[in-house]
Amino acid sequence: MPADQPPPRRRDAEENRERLVAAAREVFAADGFDAPLDAIARRAGVGRATLYRNFPDRSALAAAIFADNLTALEALARAQRDQPNAFMTLLTAAVDQQIEVHALFPALLSAPDAPDLQVLARRVMRLLAAPLRRARAAREVRPDLTAADVLAVLAMIAAVVSGDTSVRSRRHSALRALELLLHGVVPRDAANR
Amino acid sequence: MPADQPPPRRRDAEENRERLVAAAREVFAADGFDAPLDAIARRAGVGRATLYRNFPDRSALAAAIFADNLTALEALARAQRDQPNAFMTLLTAAVDQQIEVHALFPALLSAPDAPDLQVLARRVMRLLAAPLRRARAAREVRPDLTAADVLAVLAMIAAVVSGDTSVRSRRHSALRALELLLHGVVPRDAANR
Repeated sequence: MPADQPPPRRRDAEENRERLVAAAREVFAADGFDAPLDAIARRAGVGRATLYRNFPDRSALAAAIFADNLTALEALARAQRDQPNAFMTLLTAAVDQQIEVHALFPALLSAPDAPDLQVLARRVMRLLAAPLRRARAAREVRPDLTAADVLAVLAMIAAVVSGDTSVRSRRHSALRALELLLHGVVPRDAANR
Repeated sequence: MPADQPPPRRRDAEENRERLVAAAREVFAADGFDAPLDAIARRAGVGRATLYRNFPDRSALAAAIFADNLTALEALARAQRDQPNAFMTLLTAAVDQQIEVHALFPALLSAPDAPDLQVLARRVMRLLAAPLRRARAAREVRPDLTAADVLAVLAMIAAVVSGDTSVRSRRHSALRALELLLHGVVPRDAANR
C-alpha cells in the first residue's frame, strides 16, 4: 500500500459516506425530502447503523449534498478560469444544481443544525468573484452587477423551483426564470431604460 | 337610518374588523409575524375577545391582510383601466405590498388554514390579464410574457424580500430585484439575445 493512501478502513468509511450522499440525492430528488431514510441506506447498500453514524438526521444529509455541490462549483470555477464565458457557465451550473436539490431548501432554512447560510453565501461569492469581474469587463453582464445580485438571482430561481413538484416542471420553471432574469421583462428595443 | 345602511351593530363589527386588520399590518410589519396578538388588540383599541372572535389565530389575520391587498390591487386595476402604463403601475403596487407584508409569507405557506394559494394566484392573474395584454401590445413588456411569468416574478421578489429584516433593506432588495427582472442581467447592447 503506498504511503500516501489512507488505510483501507478509512477508505471504506469514505466510500460509504460518498455512497450515502449519492443515494440521498437520488431518493430526495425522486421522493422528496420526507422520503424514509431507510430507503437511502438500502439504495447505498449500507446498514442503518452506518447511515446514522455518518448522518444523524436528514438535514445532515441535506447539508452534505449542499457542501458537495459547492465543492463541485468551486472545481468548475477553477477549471473555467481561462474560459471567456466562465460566469455564465457557473451560473447555469448553479441553476442545474438548484433544479436537482430543490427538495432540500426547506431543510436548509429551518433545521436547527442547518448549515450556516452566510458561510455558504460567502463561498459562492468567492468562487464567482473573478468570473463576474471578467464578465462585467466583457459586457456579458450589466456593469453594475454585484456578487450580491448574483446571490439574489439564485435565491429568486430557488423560489420558483421550490414551488414545483416534478423534475420536468422544475426545469421548465427554472430555465424560464433564468431567461427572464438574464434578458428582462422589458423588451430590448423599449426606450424606457 | 337609510334603508341601505347596515344596522349600527353590524357596522361596529365591520369597523372592529377593519381596525384589527390595520393594527395587525402595523404590528406584523414592525415586530414580525411572531408579535403577540395582544399588542394587535391593544393597538386596534378592542378587547382580546373581539380579536379572537374575528380572527381565531394569527394566520387568519395574515389571510385577511392578503385578501385586503388583493382587493386593493383589483380596485387599482379598475381605476387604471384606461391608463397606458397600467401593467407597470400594478406590478409596482404589488411589489410595494410584498415589501409591507413580507413577515406573512411563512404563514401563507405553512398554516393549516392558510388561504388557498391557487385561488389567490387566479385572482392576481385575472386582474392582470387585460393590463398585461395591453402592455404586450404596446411593447412595454416582452411579447412572450405570460400571466404565469408575472406570478413567477412576484414569487421571485417575495423570496428576496423575505430574507431581509428591516423595512429599508427589504425595500432596497425588492427594488433591485425588480430592476434586474425588468431590465435583465445581460446588458441591453449585448449581442447574445
